[in-house]
Amino acid sequence: MADGSDSLKSVEDLIEERKEEYLETLYSFLRIESVSAENRGIDEACSMLKELMESIGIETEILPSAGNPFVYGEIIRDQSAFTLLIYGHYDVQPADPVEEWLSPPFEPTVRDGKIYCRGVGDNKGQLMAQLLAIKSYQDAIGELPINIKFLFEGEEEVSSPNLSAFVAENKELLTADLVYTSDGPKHDSGAPLVLLGVRGITYIEMTAKGADWDNHSGNKGNIVPNPAWNIIDLLNTMRDSEGRILIDGFYDNIRPITEKEEALIRSLPFDRENIGEQVGYADFNMEKEEYYRKLTLEPTFNIAGFTSGYGGEGSKTIIPSTAVLKMDIRLVVDQDPDDIFRKIEAHVKKHAPDIELKNLGGMKPSRTSADLEIVDIVKTAVRAAFRQEPVMQPSMGGSLPDYVWTDVLKTPSVIVPYANFDEANHSPNEKMGIADFTDGIKCTCHVIDAIGKMPF
Amino acid sequence: MADGSDSLKSVEDLIEERKEEYLETLYSFLRIESVSAENRGIDEACSMLKELMESIGIETEILPSAGNPFVYGEIIRDQSAFTLLIYGHYDVQPADPVEEWLSPPFEPTVRDGKIYCRGVGDNKGQLMAQLLAIKSYQDAIGELPINIKFLFEGEEEVSSPNLSAFVAENKELLTADLVYTSDGPKHDSGAPLVLLGVRGITYIEMTAKGADWDNHSGNKGNIVPNPAWNIIDLLNTMRDSEGRILIDGFYDNIRPITEKEEALIRSLPFDRENIGEQVGYADFNMEKEEYYRKLTLEPTFNIAGFTSGYGGEGSKTIIPSTAVLKMDIRLVVDQDPDDIFRKIEAHVKKHAPDIELKNLGGMKPSRTSADLEIVDIVKTAVRAAFRQEPVMQPSMGGSLPDYVWTDVLKTPSVIVPYANFDEANHSPNEKMGIADFTDGIKCTCHVIDAIGKMPF
Repeated sequence: MADGSDSLKSVEDLIEERKEEYLETLYSFLRIESVSAENRGIDEACSMLKELMESIGIETEILPSAGNPFVYGEIIRDQSAFTLLIYGHYDVQPADPVEEWLSPPFEPTVRDGKIYCRGVGDNKGQLMAQLLAIKSYQDAIGELPINIKFLFEGEEEVSSPNLSAFVAENKELLTADLVYTSDGPKHDSGAPLVLLGVRGITYIEMTAKGADWDNHSGNKGNIVPNPAWNIIDLLNTMRDSEGRILIDGFYDNIRPITEKEEALIRSLPFDRENIGEQVGYADFNMEKEEYYRKLTLEPTFNIAGFTSGYGGEGSKTIIPSTAVLKMDIRLVVDQDPDDIFRKIEAHVKKHAPDIELKNLGGMKPSRTSADLEIVDIVKTAVRAAFRQEPVMQPSMGGSLPDYVWTDVLKTPSVIVPYANFDEANHSPNEKMGIADFTDGIKCTCHVIDAIGKMPF
Repeated sequence: MADGSDSLKSVEDLIEERKEEYLETLYSFLRIESVSAENRGIDEACSMLKELMESIGIETEILPSAGNPFVYGEIIRDQSAFTLLIYGHYDVQPADPVEEWLSPPFEPTVRDGKIYCRGVGDNKGQLMAQLLAIKSYQDAIGELPINIKFLFEGEEEVSSPNLSAFVAENKELLTADLVYTSDGPKHDSGAPLVLLGVRGITYIEMTAKGADWDNHSGNKGNIVPNPAWNIIDLLNTMRDSEGRILIDGFYDNIRPITEKEEALIRSLPFDRENIGEQVGYADFNMEKEEYYRKLTLEPTFNIAGFTSGYGGEGSKTIIPSTAVLKMDIRLVVDQDPDDIFRKIEAHVKKHAPDIELKNLGGMKPSRTSADLEIVDIVKTAVRAAFRQEPVMQPSMGGSLPDYVWTDVLKTPSVIVPYANFDEANHSPNEKMGIADFTDGIKCTCHVIDAIGKMPF
């Protein structure tokens, strides 16, 4: 066998040769509208994955759950070898607002070297890069040097309600030495990113009801309660005008930021203007440390939706009968989503007992130690694949069910995103660069190769 | 000529005989979807009105305006006779939420003696009753004893932006001794109502913008502003938790409630349970005087719509790029809608200058003195028509452009609603009783007859 760098050169060449073929495979996957929030396209996505994985030589099963099925696959070279468990998700966000898409949301369309499609970055392009890496490695070099397991779920976009139980019930099947996830975007500087944790989330919905129907705001004005005001009055008891959360115990379990984490943050690159452009906010004016602290190490209290009364053109003079508020609250270690929900529940019961509160799902935050040797090996492989120094963050801003590895499976976990920072996941015109996709395939090959060379 | 009561008996008999024919005429009018907020059905409604009015012998013109046209008609018996100006509107509210209608919103459907259709109570059934009264009076008795003028507008449901200017420019055409309006519902006790004024309104829309697009609430959480929170933070500077408005000068011009008005309110009927049922709010628990004061003599600060982010099923994890708030603020004499808008504008400029504020229309409040002889004559005629003691209120809860008569035309104005209290105007399943419609036709005949007998 040739030495590492030579053999990886041959894999990289093969990937470039097969680019069009690999893109077509991705496009077929993207056209499946597997929107978990809308309960569609799920079975189709599973079937396609199974067929593809088996064609690559991955032994694959579609495993049912209380929700959408899991797709599990493995290539076991040697029971005693290092086992890498790769996690991803085949479900995507809803496409709305559909009218803001420049091309149909479920028809992959290339403009300026980027593929525009719902789910291309989050997470189908990244998931597909992992699978095509196995195919490329095997075709260019031969047998994998390590064991590989895959677990793809179909409910990540609705907060992975069944992943934790599935992992808890299948610990033996999933036993691994490292969990490897490619999801989310690279660093906004364009540098590759190695993430050692995620923020958690509690997603709530509050419904206030006034009268049984919308009433005329003149003939009934002042005499029936307005549910939009009721929600707003409740929100005022939950958060002050500085944005500080007033719910009892909300901040109780937050792990203090360590010196090492602060040092990591100080070492990160920062380009204010670039960030402003990438989030579409020209007035962005944070300082570097505030930015990283708020984005990765502090919780949020975000209104994701507020809907009450008339939202069309012009005026309609009504007292709405209902107001619905959707909030996603990002959590940091060691806040627990169930505990936070119970605290919110107690608060609502005290201040506005008539408002109905629903838990739409939660996810724990996670963090893996930066001191592990395997973390260094991955970082080195990522550097080699992208020919650029990776940025290493103690946490990402978003949420992934990373705690199921660190807390349930008790296995270290690293996240190496393959999507461009401006992927616009969850937004109209989501996109992934073609080069980000092929670089992702190469990166997985590098990681497998580097781990294969570890003394074990 | 027979004496008053005999001749009115013959008109009443004629109205009952012709009931089916009159209902068909109303149904044709109702099927025209003249929704001013959606700019449709306007010309069709004007044409139908003109044709009908001319068939009754009313000289009619469609008069253009900067917005929707006015339909003006007159029967001038004698330049020196008393002139009654009847006002109404041919436009209706939008039908949404359409899914809550039990029958198609623009197809009149009779259930339990009531006509269900958008606009049947507000205002087409009441407008049609006025016209059919003229037809009935002429056919049963002969020439009208007074002069009659009609003015029907097509923008009442969008706050009558052109009525005031039209009246100001056509004072001679519209010269009258009394303005008579049938709009809104009867008293909730079922008794006929004589109203001597209305609340005014300022309708505003506020738009807050965050980033240029919706951002992922995880990957961007805490680093782009949330426009829903921006609106809520602004609202908190505008109103305290007791509902008191904190906008500088908001209460400045409110005319103190007089002893006479308080006495009027004390004399009004009150049935708490019935009110609760009619507004669809089982927990309604106000006392009588609080109820009437809040409903007729105090301003409101109502949220008619709040729309931001995701409003569909399940969860979507975004920071919305936009939040839109619609508010209708009811005013009482002598609050002025332009003055109130300027005060709100100054407040927004001070507390949240980035939030865009739009004036979607305003209307002044009005009040006519209860001491006028003509008010007594109308009250007596209404009592005779409905065979029930009318309730007389200093103001109604809703808004009509009544100030154009009291302030612009300088003419006293009375409002005598013909629709049932539970007409559900502005709501799904709007309805008007068939008997309320025919009683309305009879009432206009009584009023014309009673005024014709006045010494003048």
